[in-house]
Amino acid sequence: AIEAARHADDVYILPGLSIASLGAVKTVLLFSWMADITDLDAQSIALTDHSATSIALLKALCRERYHIEPKYVVTKQHLPSMLADHQGALVIGDDALVESIRHRALSSPNGWDIPFIYDLGDEWLKMTGLPFVFALWAARRETAQAMQAAGVFDALYASTEAGLTDDARNTLAQAYAARLGLPVGACRRYLRDLTFGLGADELAGLRRFLELALDDFKWEQLEFWGSPESLTI
Amino acid sequence: AIEAARHADDVYILPGLSIASLGAVKTVLLFSWMADITDLDAQSIALTDHSATSIALLKALCRERYHIEPKYVVTKQHLPSMLADHQGALVIGDDALVESIRHRALSSPNGWDIPFIYDLGDEWLKMTGLPFVFALWAARRETAQAMQAAGVFDALYASTEAGLTDDARNTLAQAYAARLGLPVGACRRYLRDLTFGLGADELAGLRRFLELALDDFKWEQLEFWGSPESLTI
Repeated sequence: AIEAARHADDVYILPGLSIASLGAVKTVLLFSWMADITDLDAQSIALTDHSATSIALLKALCRERYHIEPKYVVTKQHLPSMLADHQGALVIGDDALVESIRHRALSSPNGWDIPFIYDLGDEWLKMTGLPFVFALWAARRETAQAMQAAGVFDALYASTEAGLTDDARNTLAQAYAARLGLPVGACRRYLRDLTFGLGADELAGLRRFLELALDDFKWEQLEFWGSPESLTI
Repeated sequence: AIEAARHADDVYILPGLSIASLGAVKTVLLFSWMADITDLDAQSIALTDHSATSIALLKALCRERYHIEPKYVVTKQHLPSMLADHQGALVIGDDALVESIRHRALSSPNGWDIPFIYDLGDEWLKMTGLPFVFALWAARRETAQAMQAAGVFDALYASTEAGLTDDARNTLAQAYAARLGLPVGACRRYLRDLTFGLGADELAGLRRFLELALDDFKWEQLEFWGSPESLTI
């Protein structure tokens, strides 16, 4: 999401589509030896090298909700190494889902222990009352017309629609679970709890986030593909 | 909350006060050997004997969100015993907070394992988009006037206000942490994430819950103490 906003002048956002979460998202997690995020002030947090949006979200929460200034270090995403050397570790995606379900003891600077886990989707909700938009679909402005003509956008909308059925989700969860060594139910539940639309609440959450995370960002810079009447806000 | 509604004709609800949560609440948790709540259909769930509201919430979620019919058995609240004999265990309060933080391996019908955890505040949010009101203040109608005259309500509002300051919360968290054997930060964070008001969103969440949970409940039955103009909805 933040990459699309940083390149706002070069892209169109596809309206009505996102990957978002209202409350806990399960795949954008801060693991920490501290029982309260506020105790991470001036402590070091290892940041995944996989996601600019999640890093910006964590920084916004530390600044605006917790009023703390941790030291941030981008590292390879590998929870045991991150928590061996740092008081916190931002981990996203499959690794976050697997590590939170296993929730195993890891080596800390003070011995072996089970880390505390903060779900940034829930933290964002508690600060703003809004969903968090983790991903958007964007197309480069110079090629958008050609993509539209080639049917790419139509295919994207159709496949999002198709991916939301119970059957499609179960098929996806089975493939995903086998790859991660997790129970199918854990993946099915994860997919069911995400949302894939971009309605008024998601747009409000997106706007709030981008205005907090980016200096000099103006919401009006974002251009959505298609006529204004097709937009949901 | 549900007890107040069941005795709606005998009590006044104190306006503006509740204990509520938007998203994860951390102290009303379903522990389960199943990786997805939907897999608990026809399975047995042990229910805490500590809270009628939490039991009604779990039942509403199983029926309305997951479309499953587990077998419910009220038992003594003791997670290891509950999960030794049942596929799920509803645990609330201090025990829920401690067990989710320790997140230890327990004996299951199939050996030792770490249970999956579902936070019912987050589950409710994902179904309704609303906060969940866990507790209300209610006064018996016949004694309300005398309590008002004796300054009881004023004292309650004043102490709720006072309890919301950072200092008061830290003091409470320290006492609470010592008793539970938890880090102070874990208790501070828990208290900070609760809300204690009863505004439009909480009232909407309360209404939705009571209408789902109670047969023949009419929202108009609930009477709030004081003049209608003092209400927040």
